[in-house]
Amino acid sequence: MPDTTTGSPDTPTITAFDWVPDFARGLVRDIRVRWALEELGLPYSVEVLNAFGAKPGNYVDRQPFEQVPAYADEDVQLFESGAMLLYLADKHPGLLPAGHAAAWTARCWVMAAYSSVESFINRLNSYDIFHADKPWAKDAREPAVALVSQKLKRVADALGGKDWSVDDFSVADIAMICVLENLRHSGLVTQQPALVEYLARGKSRAAYGRALSAQLADFTGSPPDGWQG
Amino acid sequence: MPDTTTGSPDTPTITAFDWVPDFARGLVRDIRVRWALEELGLPYSVEVLNAFGAKPGNYVDRQPFEQVPAYADEDVQLFESGAMLLYLADKHPGLLPAGHAAAWTARCWVMAAYSSVESFINRLNSYDIFHADKPWAKDAREPAVALVSQKLKRVADALGGKDWSVDDFSVADIAMICVLENLRHSGLVTQQPALVEYLARGKSRAAYGRALSAQLADFTGSPPDGWQG
Repeated sequence: MPDTTTGSPDTPTITAFDWVPDFARGLVRDIRVRWALEELGLPYSVEVLNAFGAKPGNYVDRQPFEQVPAYADEDVQLFESGAMLLYLADKHPGLLPAGHAAAWTARCWVMAAYSSVESFINRLNSYDIFHADKPWAKDAREPAVALVSQKLKRVADALGGKDWSVDDFSVADIAMICVLENLRHSGLVTQQPALVEYLARGKSRAAYGRALSAQLADFTGSPPDGWQG
Repeated sequence: MPDTTTGSPDTPTITAFDWVPDFARGLVRDIRVRWALEELGLPYSVEVLNAFGAKPGNYVDRQPFEQVPAYADEDVQLFESGAMLLYLADKHPGLLPAGHAAAWTARCWVMAAYSSVESFINRLNSYDIFHADKPWAKDAREPAVALVSQKLKRVADALGGKDWSVDDFSVADIAMICVLENLRHSGLVTQQPALVEYLARGKSRAAYGRALSAQLADFTGSPPDGWQG
């Protein structure tokens, strides 16, 4: 749960944006870390930043790409939400399956979500969202859809009939479900009914609901000057 | 060093391809794991697969996307080269900077290499290599170059005047240097002279040289029928 006090030194702090367009609401990557923290029942503080304006002076030292989230607690400063998931899962019991081998399989799936799945989804979304007005985007979209479809089949095959990626719910599922949610605008996930159920299963968890509400509640800012939705 | 015997149970085994086109030689992701193993001085076995033909029957269980490398040792089976780097760095001393916080910064950079940098390089390469004959690829290339350039600047800024990403040489550098090497066809890295030096510094390490030679030596197969280079 977000902690509205300024947090004791051992309260983790994350950064988030104060406004993003509708297509990104619920998808900004701090939701992944919020979800993990909510699963662990850990209070955290949020430092809300302007996505389109200047960042606090030293922000690039905390997040070299000036994105969100950045994470800090009494022990570490982290950038990259995937690394935050791995860190929280190492630090606190409850986000990795039992057993050394199974825990490493879950870490492989975190990496797969970011590297082998999300990169292709982001490519497709760049055509559908950021370049939708360009004549070439329609042609570029076709092979991108094929790649995403192929990856979805792989993920569905690996999931098989299981509820979760590796034994019990883990950071692997937080990563993959949040990555797949990035396809919500295109509906491509429906190609794999097992993944539709997997997403619904993950998103029905109370901790996900709290994370989503908390991200949405932090959008208290205004669009940048001249924004045309 | 690759171990030509079939490896004792505690010799790590990785998979690699027996042939790839010239543009991919030296870039296939097993080189990242070979490099880490060479830095550690660990012998390893290589199972060479046909990139274009059928894989061994259970390969999809070892590598859900049917790519290389897959990794196995006496304790774990891994897919995703990034997870292998993190695993080897956890298991063996020598691939992470000293200190808990610095080690986690290095892990953040591994994740950043894959998620925040490579995904944009792969997008650009898809236009330059896989879709070079498509009329739309030239238009699509323009914003992709801008994104890659922006990421290169971020990486160069974060490197600052340092030799390595975090204190001493670490898995962070293996990941980032191998990711940046994927730009060799386009020469975009030259936009950031500090990164040109960083790549040269990494690639001059003896362990990288051995890893590269070993990958190249394993290309003993033939192109698929009908291949037109």
